Amino acid sequence: MSYDDNNVFARILRGELPCRKVYEDDHALAFHDINPLAPVHVLVIPKGRYVDMSDFTENASDAEIAGFFRAVGRTAERLGLKEGGYRVLSNCGRDANQEVPHLHVHIFGGANLGPMLRRRDG
Amino acid sequence: MSYDDNNVFARILRGELPCRKVYEDDHALAFHDINPLAPVHVLVIPKGRYVDMSDFTENASDAEIAGFFRAVGRTAERLGLKEGGYRVLSNCGRDANQEVPHLHVHIFGGANLGPMLRRRDG
Repeated sequence: MSYDDNNVFARILRGELPCRKVYEDDHALAFHDINPLAPVHVLVIPKGRYVDMSDFTENASDAEIAGFFRAVGRTAERLGLKEGGYRVLSNCGRDANQEVPHLHVHIFGGANLGPMLRRRDG
Repeated sequence: MSYDDNNVFARILRGELPCRKVYEDDHALAFHDINPLAPVHVLVIPKGRYVDMSDFTENASDAEIAGFFRAVGRTAERLGLKEGGYRVLSNCGRDANQEVPHLHVHIFGGANLGPMLRRRDG
């Protein structure tokens, strides 16, 4: 899938749409999800044009990959989630119901998060 | 939390316990989860002694971090999940019900994975 420069996260990165920022550095921007699924629900996105985890891990530099995931850890710390814990999740493509075609990592926390997936048949 | 050298993933890395290997390189080992929650459910673990995502992103080198997440992408590709999609998830600490105190990233795929978290009050 080619990158769509008009996706909502590209527009947030360009400052065309607002966000409630949590953390920002050279590699990443973190902001509160507008439809939170947990008491704390923040999205971390890389600054580069990457559709999903496969695109990112195949095409980004070591510095970009390390910088982005360090930003995930720093965001969790800034949110006060290091002691209580948190879940990190990224949906890639159709079967995961990825909604915005710019790589984003969800950070969930602030309460016990329950099961990570309901067990399925098949 | 200090690292426990007797956790089950440390023992798998040392070859003391078996696993159904999917992928391995200098930075990571990937193997099938013994209690799959989806048609495809694989764990990817770094070779270094890291408790969770915070420990890893604070203390690992850029090469280790980039190498590990490249291995996540390669594992998804090797599993044939790139086209249909997949979900990547890591539980860190108490609120996420982390079970083994060695960083592990779950890869789920092979069917539509449904919602990523049930919406909660509070």
